[in-house]
Amino acid sequence: MAVLTAIEPGYYRLPLPTALTDSMHGEMLAFELNTVRVRDADGQEGVGYTFTCGRNGAAIDAVLRRDFPEVALGLDADRIEFLWQRLWWASHYGGRGGPTVLALSALDIALWDLKARRLGQPLWKLLGGHDPRVRCYAGGIDLQLSTQDLLRQTDGNLERGFRAIKMKVGRERLSEDVARVAAMRKHLGEGFYLMADANMKWSVDQAIRAARAFQPYDLTWLEEPIIPDDVAGHARVVREAGIPIAAGENLRTLWEFKQLVAEGGVTFPEPDVTNCGGITSFLKIAHLAEAFNLPVTSHGAHDVTVHLLAAVPNGDFLEAHGFGLDAYIAEPLRIEEGCAIAPDRPGHGIAFDWDKLQAIRA
Amino acid sequence: MAVLTAIEPGYYRLPLPTALTDSMHGEMLAFELNTVRVRDADGQEGVGYTFTCGRNGAAIDAVLRRDFPEVALGLDADRIEFLWQRLWWASHYGGRGGPTVLALSALDIALWDLKARRLGQPLWKLLGGHDPRVRCYAGGIDLQLSTQDLLRQTDGNLERGFRAIKMKVGRERLSEDVARVAAMRKHLGEGFYLMADANMKWSVDQAIRAARAFQPYDLTWLEEPIIPDDVAGHARVVREAGIPIAAGENLRTLWEFKQLVAEGGVTFPEPDVTNCGGITSFLKIAHLAEAFNLPVTSHGAHDVTVHLLAAVPNGDFLEAHGFGLDAYIAEPLRIEEGCAIAPDRPGHGIAFDWDKLQAIRA
Repeated sequence: MAVLTAIEPGYYRLPLPTALTDSMHGEMLAFELNTVRVRDADGQEGVGYTFTCGRNGAAIDAVLRRDFPEVALGLDADRIEFLWQRLWWASHYGGRGGPTVLALSALDIALWDLKARRLGQPLWKLLGGHDPRVRCYAGGIDLQLSTQDLLRQTDGNLERGFRAIKMKVGRERLSEDVARVAAMRKHLGEGFYLMADANMKWSVDQAIRAARAFQPYDLTWLEEPIIPDDVAGHARVVREAGIPIAAGENLRTLWEFKQLVAEGGVTFPEPDVTNCGGITSFLKIAHLAEAFNLPVTSHGAHDVTVHLLAAVPNGDFLEAHGFGLDAYIAEPLRIEEGCAIAPDRPGHGIAFDWDKLQAIRA
Repeated sequence: MAVLTAIEPGYYRLPLPTALTDSMHGEMLAFELNTVRVRDADGQEGVGYTFTCGRNGAAIDAVLRRDFPEVALGLDADRIEFLWQRLWWASHYGGRGGPTVLALSALDIALWDLKARRLGQPLWKLLGGHDPRVRCYAGGIDLQLSTQDLLRQTDGNLERGFRAIKMKVGRERLSEDVARVAAMRKHLGEGFYLMADANMKWSVDQAIRAARAFQPYDLTWLEEPIIPDDVAGHARVVREAGIPIAAGENLRTLWEFKQLVAEGGVTFPEPDVTNCGGITSFLKIAHLAEAFNLPVTSHGAHDVTVHLLAAVPNGDFLEAHGFGLDAYIAEPLRIEEGCAIAPDRPGHGIAFDWDKLQAIRA
């Protein structure tokens, strides 16, 4: 038995190289990073993390520091399902959603990392081992860029090896969005995978109108056209938009995904392993999607998520989505010919530079 | 313009007089109380609070201390809808649900209290003024009591003036639940309002089986038979159980209530003003219920909620549910002949004993 003896949270504030903008989060100047290191009685270690686009990090830290150790320390670190259920129900009343689920996600990632390192296997193999090569796209956060700067950013992504790119939509006027999507399609050529992300900006009818206006430009998907809370609305958009719909970065549980998937409200489910309940929940969501004959894609945390999409048969289109984190880890994600490669190091294989992180403690 | 100049959180741990037990939260030894005091440039004050059954309080405190002041200070305290939307979207990514919504609820209550005190009106009048008398029930947390102790607790509630009582169900065997419900019905007599609360214990089919077994005992409602996440399951329980269904204390947004109500998944919606997004959200949920020809009842925080159920035409069955808080406020809720009376003091009229609270700071 691998007795869990330590849960050590870390809380950091990462200034962004340039301010990011999307249609609903406004201007983002810094991301928060919450790490958690777990140790077992043999001294083995696992590491997990979550992040926010600037708020709730102190609350995540408080949950990891004050609530979770009391519930989990002294128990068998290998019984992750048992720990997950215990943490879920112990914190359910005040913690169903929000910072508590982000904290749980980080801790769950750390526990899986610990387990895989104990077993000497990379996560992608331990969790299923389907195929280490995963199609990958560059997630641009570029709503306020001029069309010229958007195309320049795109050239940079092409040089970095991407063969699929996502852009933001949701400008003041739909005609602006359409012109930008058209410019991107022209720049990238026929057949290049191009996605667009509205970040919850529209009502259902507006979303359908926008999707139809985008139809000539062959989008791989339109992402988060409406708020995540409107399940029936998603189902209508899927039926009437005429282009595939992606959603999920703002869903926080397996059950929220179940509702959306079972109601026919999504084509590309996009759980984020750092906010959906961790690896434990992500895998269940991936299998749920498979049962409904859907792919599973991702949001954020590409260095962990590459393992999950490589583990399962329906994983596709990993989102590569820096926010400056690569500067703090030893071996950033490898991308070759449009594919990310799940590393063969044990665990998830992310080695944080803790000394460098020390300088940006929140 | 009433410029918001201060947001002062407080975080306390209230030991419970006796340990409370329900079917899913296990044994609860202490509740957490998070208060928030707001002040405007004229020195006027408002007070709000939220609570948990033992965890996430430090996270709520962190949100109120670290995230919300930056978003809200310096703005017009009277534009509560503007502030609410701003806080919601500023914290949405990491804060849709969980501790962030509890923090938002507390702050929203404080802002409404401030506004009502500025205007010299009790909240129930300011918000609608339907009827200050609201039917009220005693919410017993008594799953592990022997039947004898359950009846003894019930006699205490009768002496305190209650004419409606809720008991817990969800024991190991359904036959035990049925025997306890039968004993309560016999003890209370025909026609007395009796509710039962399963705290999410069952699957849908188990819930329907239990509800049918309770049918001879004329329950006013069966509460939280299943997890809050299963909307389709709630709709089935409502259709097939043959007794009214109450739910809502674990829903955190207007949209979660909309889903449940619009799908026909609930007979008695039960928002908790301290965790559904505050007074702003509670009123919208009450009006949503009215639009679907449903009553609105409540969970927790009876001293605030009495105003809300008194304000609207469809408010009914206030839950009176101490957790030792009455010992820290000047004038606890008045109950007469089974009704709670919304007080005519300005605002919500709750005066905390801050000195006494100081002794239980977390």
